[in-house]
Amino acid sequence: MSDILNRLAAVLEERRNADPKTSYVAALYAKGLDAILKKIGEEATETVIAAKGGDQRQVVYELADLWFHTLVLLAEQGLKPDDILAELERRFGLSGIEEKAARPRRD
Amino acid sequence: MSDILNRLAAVLEERRNADPKTSYVAALYAKGLDAILKKIGEEATETVIAAKGGDQRQVVYELADLWFHTLVLLAEQGLKPDDILAELERRFGLSGIEEKAARPRRD
Amino acid sequence: MSDILNRLAAVLEERRNADPKTSYVAALYAKGLDAILKKIGEEATETVIAAKGGDQRQVVYELADLWFHTLVLLAEQGLKPDDILAELERRFGLSGIEEKAARPRRD
Amino acid sequence: MSDILNRLAAVLEERRNADPKTSYVAALYAKGLDAILKKIGEEATETVIAAKGGDQRQVVYELADLWFHTLVLLAEQGLKPDDILAELERRFGLSGIEEKAARPRRD
Repeated sequence: MSDILNRLAAVLEERRNADPKTSYVAALYAKGLDAILKKIGEEATETVIAAKGGDQRQVVYELADLWFHTLVLLAEQGLKPDDILAELERRFGLSGIEEKAARPRRD
Repeated sequence: MSDILNRLAAVLEERRNADPKTSYVAALYAKGLDAILKKIGEEATETVIAAKGGDQRQVVYELADLWFHTLVLLAEQGLKPDDILAELERRFGLSGIEEKAARPRRD
Repeated sequence: MSDILNRLAAVLEERRNADPKTSYVAALYAKGLDAILKKIGEEATETVIAAKGGDQRQVVYELADLWFHTLVLLAEQGLKPDDILAELERRFGLSGIEEKAARPRRD
Repeated sequence: MSDILNRLAAVLEERRNADPKTSYVAALYAKGLDAILKKIGEEATETVIAAKGGDQRQVVYELADLWFHTLVLLAEQGLKPDDILAELERRFGLSGIEEKAARPRRD
């Protein structure tokens, strides 16, 4: 099932040249980077609201929205899901423990 | 490579019972849901800053952080990456076009 | 000029009982707390985007939006701008220096 | 009491030239714009979490943090609280009703 990320990325890549009138994503690309970033901020907030609301179904829904818009950002940047997965792999694989995956942040 | 999500989820699940002193993630679980949600808000903001800064390497880095903390949230909620991927599949597969994946939001 | 906060708060308070069809704010109250919080997350993200974009006029515009929606939240919670100003005064006045106003956060 | 914004702004302005080792705000300025923007994203998220948690005292606390860091941003940008208040006044005063204060957003 995890192949869905690559399949979705392929469609998103394709939509970059589509008519903005015919596609939500094409319209988002046409609006530009700021519009995509607004969606990421928005969906992150909605994820927080859903989780605090205790509605697990809504958490799934909002996280799908959030992941979806990060895939749109990746396509806009000429990146692929594998770039993120490789970064996670790199951190994660260093020592086989997750501590390396998310090093304590300094700020 | 996309299997990394499931492998990471398995480790995160395991860490739920670990000593908070020995693991970043175990410490995050111990702090509770709010601490995890703060990280999601934080990493979303850092993604926006990185993308606006035009540093593609930093975008990858921050998106890895963001995805990572959404995986922590999933584990905390007793959910799995496949729950999100299935939701994306469901939207995406309905008609084979991405318009269904991200219906225009009402607000 | 700073009296504008109190005057705005008074109008916002009044709008709580207005017909949602006749007022943006009354409609926002009718949608409930989550809708107000979404706006706060949204306007914070737009502030970040504006500041990174280097457009000072846009920063003013987005910060006005952000402050405005925090005033809506205050009204929704039965709070007043003076509650926030008193909290700032309290921190700020303790020693006359700003270090007390925003103690370093632990997380 | 609303004069607190101007007094706080004056202190923040003064701190721009202070030794980063002696002041939280001076240290924040030294880190630069991105560090300030991260705080704004962070405090907005914490406001959402507090409001969803139903803890009114915590809402006041987090909104004070959020307003405080927007004042830091204003100082960093060479702006003043009055610039935001004037913008609110302008919108608010146009017709005497709040609908003008926050025109429906297009996206």
